[in-house]
Amino acid sequence: MRVSFIGSGNVASHLALACAKAKLSVIDIYSPSLSNAQALADQCGARAISDFSLLNQEVDLIIVAANDNALPSIAQQLALCSAPVVHTAGSVDVEVLRSAHHPYGVLYPLQTFSKNKEIEIAKVPFFAEASNEQLLMLLSQLVEQLGASFHRASSEQRLHLHIAAVFACNFSNYMYSLANDLLEKHQLPFEALSPLILETAEKIQHMSPVQAQTGPAKRNDDQTIEKHLQALANEPLMFQLYQLISTEIKKKQNL
Amino acid sequence: MRVSFIGSGNVASHLALACAKAKLSVIDIYSPSLSNAQALADQCGARAISDFSLLNQEVDLIIVAANDNALPSIAQQLALCSAPVVHTAGSVDVEVLRSAHHPYGVLYPLQTFSKNKEIEIAKVPFFAEASNEQLLMLLSQLVEQLGASFHRASSEQRLHLHIAAVFACNFSNYMYSLANDLLEKHQLPFEALSPLILETAEKIQHMSPVQAQTGPAKRNDDQTIEKHLQALANEPLMFQLYQLISTEIKKKQNL
Repeated sequence: MRVSFIGSGNVASHLALACAKAKLSVIDIYSPSLSNAQALADQCGARAISDFSLLNQEVDLIIVAANDNALPSIAQQLALCSAPVVHTAGSVDVEVLRSAHHPYGVLYPLQTFSKNKEIEIAKVPFFAEASNEQLLMLLSQLVEQLGASFHRASSEQRLHLHIAAVFACNFSNYMYSLANDLLEKHQLPFEALSPLILETAEKIQHMSPVQAQTGPAKRNDDQTIEKHLQALANEPLMFQLYQLISTEIKKKQNL
Repeated sequence: MRVSFIGSGNVASHLALACAKAKLSVIDIYSPSLSNAQALADQCGARAISDFSLLNQEVDLIIVAANDNALPSIAQQLALCSAPVVHTAGSVDVEVLRSAHHPYGVLYPLQTFSKNKEIEIAKVPFFAEASNEQLLMLLSQLVEQLGASFHRASSEQRLHLHIAAVFACNFSNYMYSLANDLLEKHQLPFEALSPLILETAEKIQHMSPVQAQTGPAKRNDDQTIEKHLQALANEPLMFQLYQLISTEIKKKQNL
């Protein structure tokens, strides 16, 4: 399978490298910055370009992994190409890529990608949607070759998957960072929380989040909640979140 | 080392079993419910009691792992005993156990304990405080025998550790459960989020939460944020949290 990438950011990098590792042919890496394209292309034996007109048309798939906001203009640039085009965004409708000249679709990897942190691609669930069954088959073959799990999801389902991921990943991470700030203020090492954070995530691999819930709110322990709120008197944001989320945990557990 | 436990809940169970496994002698398990005490005592070769006056006084340490609210009355029951007494609560001052008859302290395991979910005790950081150095030494030996890491923390530091843990663990888990509810409403499997949740927790084992932050708010991607808020129009709580936390992530990333 011959695949090209538009983009050289986190998602493009992780996917292009995973494709190269899985012995797919990565043909072109496009980025408006040629040096960025080159850095990634070098790692996966591809050609770097910064001009859409140079894109090799003899490929099985073009994967656009760019900023959501850049998708409409990239779609315009690719409107006349004949190879199938997919984007990787959680919250952008598949129709942004509509063209009379090529099949189009979405291949959404549900994972958090950071530079300098390797991802085991086999553990990434991919959610796909396509304008025709042939492209859907191709996407499923590609995912299979990566050793990952393949699912179908409509644009609307994908939007909700993305929102769920924001809560489960981005907002959880933000909870970690509030904890980090509080510990720093009290000369305590954030590392002390590492085992707890890992255990919290591991728990829900085997039980539901409602079953896994622990803590003062879950126990209806108003005395501890009151103590914590008093201690947070000078932290208005943490105070507000503590109060709001504790109230909601209590409600949920008493359903 | 000979240790007795007051309590038979999550924390008492995990600690008593870990002690038995580490070849400490677990002597008595007290619970107001004798059958609860018996169930745990059977697992660690101890005696079950539901009457404080039966407590064997010839022990090196009595560990009170009970509800925070029960600690004052338990302290009264133990006031005259001569063995050192510690509690395991994050947010209760060490002074609740003050007595002229025995040294007292705290041994706080920073972890989330659920029934039916084993914990690798060696990965639990313990935070200790004691009324004299001899008891502190004893606690450090006990933690060493469990193979876990030992730290000192004042009652005030421990309170902030506990609050940080509520955010990093209890509130993260609540974010998982909001994600779970949203996915259920849209016929999507919660399991799809498992790798993402695990990766999010694993990331901060090696980088700070601020470095690990990803997502629309981190990217200042207002278009996606707007889409998500629209999609959450019928979910007032998720809408409120989404808006609040996204605003704060943006602030934090632009510091």
